[in-house]
Formats: sequence, structure tokens, C-alpha cells
Amino acid sequence: MKVIVAEKCGFCPGVRNAISTAEKVLARQGGRDPVYSLGPIIHNPNEVDRLAEAGLYTVESVDQIPSGTVLIRSHGAAPDQIEQLHNKGVTIIDATCVLVKRLQKIARQLEEEGYQVVILGEPNHPEVRAVKGHLKNALVITDKDDLSKIPPGGRLGIVCQTTQSPEQFGAMLGAIAEGPFMELKVINTLCRESCKRQESAVQLCQQVDVMFILGGLHSANTRRLAELCRKFNPHTYHLETWQGLDPAVLTGHQTAGVTAGASTPDWVIEEFVKNLEAG
Amino acid sequence: MKVIVAEKCGFCPGVRNAISTAEKVLARQGGRDPVYSLGPIIHNPNEVDRLAEAGLYTVESVDQIPSGTVLIRSHGAAPDQIEQLHNKGVTIIDATCVLVKRLQKIARQLEEEGYQVVILGEPNHPEVRAVKGHLKNALVITDKDDLSKIPPGGRLGIVCQTTQSPEQFGAMLGAIAEGPFMELKVINTLCRESCKRQESAVQLCQQVDVMFILGGLHSANTRRLAELCRKFNPHTYHLETWQGLDPAVLTGHQTAGVTAGASTPDWVIEEFVKNLEAG
Repeated sequence: MKVIVAEKCGFCPGVRNAISTAEKVLARQGGRDPVYSLGPIIHNPNEVDRLAEAGLYTVESVDQIPSGTVLIRSHGAAPDQIEQLHNKGVTIIDATCVLVKRLQKIARQLEEEGYQVVILGEPNHPEVRAVKGHLKNALVITDKDDLSKIPPGGRLGIVCQTTQSPEQFGAMLGAIAEGPFMELKVINTLCRESCKRQESAVQLCQQVDVMFILGGLHSANTRRLAELCRKFNPHTYHLETWQGLDPAVLTGHQTAGVTAGASTPDWVIEEFVKNLEAG
Repeated sequence: MKVIVAEKCGFCPGVRNAISTAEKVLARQGGRDPVYSLGPIIHNPNEVDRLAEAGLYTVESVDQIPSGTVLIRSHGAAPDQIEQLHNKGVTIIDATCVLVKRLQKIARQLEEEGYQVVILGEPNHPEVRAVKGHLKNALVITDKDDLSKIPPGGRLGIVCQTTQSPEQFGAMLGAIAEGPFMELKVINTLCRESCKRQESAVQLCQQVDVMFILGGLHSANTRRLAELCRKFNPHTYHLETWQGLDPAVLTGHQTAGVTAGASTPDWVIEEFVKNLEAG
């Protein structure tokens, strides 16, 4: 099988920074003091397991952290969580992605300017939950069914989850603008790295017989890559690792494309490509 | 033939004001001093002819006005035209629609705030030309083919020709937001009267066998009504008056809907409905 890997794929700078920060902290602590991650450090079970073995405990809430050191993952955290951690005297290591920090800051500014903030994204995604936590009264809009939540005649300050696609951003904004708004102030908070991965995946999937998207099944940006590729190539498969592959899907295909989400470690991509080329 | 007239149609308040202003000025002058209209007072040849008989001379440029009184029509005029008229010592009667004045003011404010102003509309429409005349460097975007005119990564201040439809406003805004912008500030400058006429026409055309849109063939808002209705009823006809009707199009139809653009006089609608009901 001929295999082509997308020009842009795998760890983004924000994820790379979170992982290397975790590794540095773990090395410094040397197992003396516990190190917690508030939520999985990235949406990739393999990487979470690898770091757990090195001593990074994933917890779901602040209540589960008695003392020690806590890592804020690249998706960020809400101010009330940070405050609770401060009050506990926990050492906080902030690995929030710079683009997520920018999104939080912009959303706060829009609220201060008097706009009703609208976040285009998934309400349960940790990035969106953390941004919402920075605001008094934000609306999260996922799809056109949510448009009725928007009060008519309003002044809306609109931002977007960093890993959404420009197509989805445009489609939702167009739908909002068809409604009875008075003013929209829209700041482009999309991650360029994420957009480049999407462009690169869409280009590649049209040149190959079968397309593989590697990454956590819960990873928003990986799922977005799979959704986009499926539009252009019906033979698109979203897998976490080589172990998830059903060999039957390879039958009759000569060339395969491979891309990976921003939270997929290099070794997952390398293992997959090596096995596919050998097959 | 059963005839239903759209709930909202015909002269909008802006047009009604321009016509009654013209009539008052003509009555006051009593033929002593010439009265000019800078461009046709409305996009309706019948009404223009009626007012011409009463002494309103339509001219295409300021150069054609030597002295006397000039009426600025509801679409407005550019500041350089107003200045030239002042310099000539001509008496200016301003009948610019209040919503067009608002659009001009908003566009200027956006430019002052440092935004690249984008006007969504028709570049040759007098309203758009007048708004553009208020700005240093505005772009006019009509359809998706024009999107390449927008510089990437910009801060765009977006307004819309008052008579466009919310659907078109949304579609163009969505297309802009898919591109590489940094910030959009969008002010809703659509005319609510125009939107209500569109909603009313779209509702009606779906309840009748054949739909007639009355109004000047060069009237942007009338053409927009015809475009919208054609999507829902293929038996849609845009006519200036009853004289334009080909009786063959009535064959086999039991009910007819009638609407009219914002520049269509009541007598055109009344004459059409009377003749259609009698037929």
C-alpha cells in the first residue's frame, strides 16, 4: 500500500507545550509530590496512559486535589476553578494554549463592551466550558437548532471554539445574520494551525483511495477532520491507533492518506504508517 | 380571477415622503422657478412622468442644474454633489430616506473606527453610490465572485444596501466569515419595511396560482421581490403596469397574488387589481 501523510498533522504547538510542561514538572518532582491534571491533559487515551505511568494523575474536579501540583491543560480552566486551587494552596502550572487564552481575553472584552457573547462551539468541550466560565452570561451555539436561544435585536459579540472549521464558522454566522440582530462584532478566534490541518487533510483525501484520521475518538479537532474528509472521500476512517484497524477496509485500495488530530502523538502516526506500508 | 393583494406592499415611508416633499415644493414654486430632481425621484417611470408634467425636471448630474431648487431623492446623494450644489447657490431640499441617512452615518463611523468598510449591495444603485461617496475607501461586494476584492486578515466594517433581503445578507456574511478575516463589525442596515414586504410577498406567492410583482423594471427592491417569489412560485411575473400584461399567462389559473415595490404608486396597484378581477 502506498501511504501519503498529510503535510500538516499531529501535535499542535499548544499540545506539544502542555506535554513537555507535564514531562518537565514530573521530572522535577521525581515522584516526591503528586502531580495532577485537571481533566485529561489531551484527548488521547494512549498519551494520557503514558503520562499516568510517569506520575500524572488525571482528576475530573478540583475537589479531588488535596495538595501538590496541578497542571492546567491546553484547553484552559475557568476562573472559579483557579480560585479554588489557589485557596487550597496547590501549586498551579498553567499550560493553557496561547490561542485559548486569547479567546478567553477577547470574550471577556466583548462582554465588557456590552455585547451579548455568543460562543460558536460544543457546550461540553472543556475549552468552551472554560471560556464560558470567564463570562457572566454567554450563550453557546452549536448548530442551527440553537439559533432560537439568541435574543432578537441584540448586539452580539461572537467568538468561536478554536478548533472549529472556517466553513462551520461561516455557515453559523450566515444563519445568525439572517435573523433579527442589530449589531454583530465577530472576532476570528480560529486556530490557524487547526485550519491548516483541515486544508491539508481535505486536499490529501481527494488524492487517495482511502483516508485514515488518527486520534482520540473524543477529540473535537480530530472528529472535525474526519467529518470534513468524509464529505470528499466516503472511504474515511477515524481510528485511535493501528489496533483499531479492520483490515477489510483496505481491500481494493492502492493508496492511503493519513492525517492526525492535534492531540495525536507522533508515535501513533509512525506506527500506523509503518504497518500500513508493510501490509 | 380571485385576486389577493399582499398585506404589505407599495410605497414605503421614505418614498412617500420624497413624493409628498416634491409635490409641496412644486405647489409652492407654482412654476415660477425650476425644480430639479438629481436622478429619477423613484425608480418608477409612471410616477416620474406624472411629476414631470407638474414641473419636476429629472437631471443626471449637478452640471445640468444652473439655478433654482433641487430635490435630493430618497436614495440620497454624495457629499461632493451636495457641496457642488451649495457652491452654485441652488436651494437644496433633502428628501433622503431616514434609513439611508442612518446607513451613511454608520458607514462613516465604521471608517472612523479604522474598519475597512464593505457595503453589501449593487455598485451602480444610487443609494450605494451615495453611501460610497461618504467614504474614503469603501468596497462594494455584490456576490461571491467579488470576495477576492477583500484584503485578507482585515478588520471589516460591514453594512448592507437597505433593500437587500436578510437571506442575501446572511449568505454573503457567511461567505466572508469563511475567509481569512481578523474582525468583522456588522451593523444591520436592512430596512424593516422592505423585509416585511419580502416576507409578505413570499407568504402570498405560495398560496396563489400566479404571482404579479408590480414596479419599475430598474427598481432594486422590486426586482428583489420578484427574485424571492420566483424561488417559491415559478408563475411569477414582474410588470410595470397593467399594460405590460400578456393575457396568455392567466390561462388555467384561478387565484392571483399581487404585490408591489416600495416605489410603485397606489394607482398602479389599484388599476391592476381592478382589471384582473374583471378579467
